[in-house]
Amino acid sequence: MKISIDDLHKAFESRVRLGIMSALAVNDGLDFTSLKDFLDVTDGNLATHIKKLEKEGFIEVEKSFINNKPNTTYYMTTEGKKAFEEHLNVLEEIIKSQK
Amino acid sequence: MKISIDDLHKAFESRVRLGIMSALAVNDGLDFTSLKDFLDVTDGNLATHIKKLEKEGFIEVEKSFINNKPNTTYYMTTEGKKAFEEHLNVLEEIIKSQK
Repeated sequence: MKISIDDLHKAFESRVRLGIMSALAVNDGLDFTSLKDFLDVTDGNLATHIKKLEKEGFIEVEKSFINNKPNTTYYMTTEGKKAFEEHLNVLEEIIKSQK
Repeated sequence: MKISIDDLHKAFESRVRLGIMSALAVNDGLDFTSLKDFLDVTDGNLATHIKKLEKEGFIEVEKSFINNKPNTTYYMTTEGKKAFEEHLNVLEEIIKSQK
């Protein structure tokens, strides 16, 4: 038996990043405040983890104006969706191996 | 909907520590070399993560001699087993929410 921890993506080790991806996977685009409310984290903490996921190419940012106020919406990219699904599949295997 | 990332234990964020716990959960005691082979990590990396889990009280160490050679075996504690099961349950919820 060999545990395939190499197949777990390092970008998703952080529970905040796991949470961001989970939220964006089931919601088609979320703004900063919604993500913050979902995850119950500070602005700084969320911003750091968003930047990391953006750098990986797993989420993308859309800046717009709503009622003349700037609004930033985050989306999961196709690449991010694929990587996250693979990550969850490996976690699922690990969970199954424990039962 | 609120993602319960707070229920994910920080000790298990690292994929190496997740791997150590997975290996010890299905094997009743493993020595250093067996753990290293399972996880395919360096000595230093494994030692660091073992120390962290030991400090949390999630694994315990038994030192003995086998054929006059020192041998160290690692076991999961009852507390570790409980915490790891809870962690996997939360991961399972996250995975389910994606399907």
